[in-house]
Amino acid sequence: MLLSAENSLLLLIDYQTKLMPAIAEGARVLNRARLLTDAAQACGVPIWATEQYPHGLGETVPDLIPLITRRLTKTHFNAATEAHVQDALALWQGRRIVLAGCEAHVCLLQTALGLKSQGWAVSVALDACGSRHLDDKALARDRLIHAGLPLISVEMAAFEWAEHKDSAAFKAVLGAVKHAD
Amino acid sequence: MLLSAENSLLLLIDYQTKLMPAIAEGARVLNRARLLTDAAQACGVPIWATEQYPHGLGETVPDLIPLITRRLTKTHFNAATEAHVQDALALWQGRRIVLAGCEAHVCLLQTALGLKSQGWAVSVALDACGSRHLDDKALARDRLIHAGLPLISVEMAAFEWAEHKDSAAFKAVLGAVKHAD
Amino acid sequence: MLLSAENSLLLLIDYQTKLMPAIAEGARVLNRARLLTDAAQACGVPIWATEQYPHGLGETVPDLIPLITRRLTKTHFNAATEAHVQDALALWQGRRIVLAGCEAHVCLLQTALGLKSQGWAVSVALDACGSRHLDDKALARDRLIHAGLPLISVEMAAFEWAEHKDSAAFKAVLGAVKHAD
Amino acid sequence: MLLSAENSLLLLIDYQTKLMPAIAEGARVLNRARLLTDAAQACGVPIWATEQYPHGLGETVPDLIPLITRRLTKTHFNAATEAHVQDALALWQGRRIVLAGCEAHVCLLQTALGLKSQGWAVSVALDACGSRHLDDKALARDRLIHAGLPLISVEMAAFEWAEHKDSAAFKAVLGAVKHAD
Repeated sequence: MLLSAENSLLLLIDYQTKLMPAIAEGARVLNRARLLTDAAQACGVPIWATEQYPHGLGETVPDLIPLITRRLTKTHFNAATEAHVQDALALWQGRRIVLAGCEAHVCLLQTALGLKSQGWAVSVALDACGSRHLDDKALARDRLIHAGLPLISVEMAAFEWAEHKDSAAFKAVLGAVKHAD
Repeated sequence: MLLSAENSLLLLIDYQTKLMPAIAEGARVLNRARLLTDAAQACGVPIWATEQYPHGLGETVPDLIPLITRRLTKTHFNAATEAHVQDALALWQGRRIVLAGCEAHVCLLQTALGLKSQGWAVSVALDACGSRHLDDKALARDRLIHAGLPLISVEMAAFEWAEHKDSAAFKAVLGAVKHAD
Repeated sequence: MLLSAENSLLLLIDYQTKLMPAIAEGARVLNRARLLTDAAQACGVPIWATEQYPHGLGETVPDLIPLITRRLTKTHFNAATEAHVQDALALWQGRRIVLAGCEAHVCLLQTALGLKSQGWAVSVALDACGSRHLDDKALARDRLIHAGLPLISVEMAAFEWAEHKDSAAFKAVLGAVKHAD
Repeated sequence: MLLSAENSLLLLIDYQTKLMPAIAEGARVLNRARLLTDAAQACGVPIWATEQYPHGLGETVPDLIPLITRRLTKTHFNAATEAHVQDALALWQGRRIVLAGCEAHVCLLQTALGLKSQGWAVSVALDACGSRHLDDKALARDRLIHAGLPLISVEMAAFEWAEHKDSAAFKAVLGAVKHAD
């Protein structure tokens, strides 16, 4: 039930430059997204990102781009319905997908439910997810719970991936946690 | 698990002129009800509405009436027990009923549980539901969850019905979302 | 899934004179308890009450006493373990027990779980329940949900028992609801 | 479903001197931890404690140390993965482990899920648990619920262990409750 770095894939959803300014508590959401990404990098977890119609909504925010190993463009809100996303994910068959992104109740939610219906194990790092309105985020939480998906926090992922205080990744994870505080 | 416009029916519960002024955060509730109805219309989802004893509680609020394709009068709090409601719904056998309305813990809740017990798939757009007291709405949420009904937000429905950014309905949905903000 | 008056028994837990002044938001809790009891009386639902060690904690509050048809003394926090309570309840075998009382996380919770483990159907009217600290009440809610017990509000019970606007009890229920507001 | 003193083991997680000052609402968390420990002692429940890397994070806080019957050092966040912890717990096979500690979303959560996956019955006394950030504690709550673990409050444990007002332990438990208020 706990995450392991060897069995995880991080998929960031639509942290795009023209969307993020509209997100409620957006600075906190991006702070958490950055910590999640730093922890994934320290622990060797692949870091992928989707972008919804980047011509209109912009690219992923600059702070995250250097850490991402693969970017996937989409036009469906549910990334799991895009054939090229399915093909790319097939490389990591069997891994648990750790999801985070925006908006919590649209692209993040639809992708989480879509991946689950295709048989993927999915965990959602809710404190790194945002919507324009907090009401919508709260209902996204309710619906993810209804679907049986485990909600996690960014720090849960970081410390489960690091596993113990003598692991190779622990110092880097702890540094990132302190830097984000 | 996601909604589709082809498989949905919107059923509005008792948004009546003499009830709405007593609803907590009533202006927000009506704002969400209007957006839900606009999105349904843009996506070709049938829009029905119930009215509890309209002689006493008044008709549906004027803002919604032009969008409604069928109005159903009732005297039971649980609309699903009325024979003429059952007969009307039978036309749409197999569709998922998206419910929203007032009061969240009385007619909305009773109708949701009643429809479910008759075998209907039901989703409740909670941010478009209201009660006179917020405590009662919170307990309506708990009881809907206990009954296994998925809670959604109005925008979830709008973007699941629209499905992708190039769909026929997307522009109208996006316009309605921006207008409601 | 909805309550019916013919199939309900109301069991009030420990609304006692020396306990109630310590309950957080105690006036609201008693307001809801009175409305629940008035609605039960209007709808012909039997109204029973337990008292924990009344020599020390006092009798049930005077406002409720005239409406109660049977009072049961106990020394266990969990009323369901007392043989005379079991014997009394056996008269109503098959009814759903609607519970409300104090403290939410001690005698109310223990009795709810105890009755459930003896095979009773139990619903808890949470807005009529209180604890000295709101944290404890919130965790009582979590544990009741974990145990699969449906949480209801007092007004849910009132309007499910009344059922429709032309029922014999509706006018009295509506009067009690308005009086309690 | 209720706790019994004869069948419980209290396991305190990492209430350490250099960690507690960083915990949100830390004074309240320690107040609850002390009450839980006092109640366990009054009721004859064994009281064990883990310490994460005490050379760095310090020992258990002095207020709790005299009440603890066994202290277990660890380097994994998840205490259940440590062989000496497994060996020690094997002495109490069949008991329900009542857990409380810090951080709620790291060592407490990982140990709870780890023990559960090894077949232990686990209840978490959430009001005695803390994280540096309340968001993380809230998501720990969600994940414990997702895992099917019952959440309890400290007073629930105290009054379930005491069981009735004439039990040998009741007076001591009541005194500890009043002292903690």
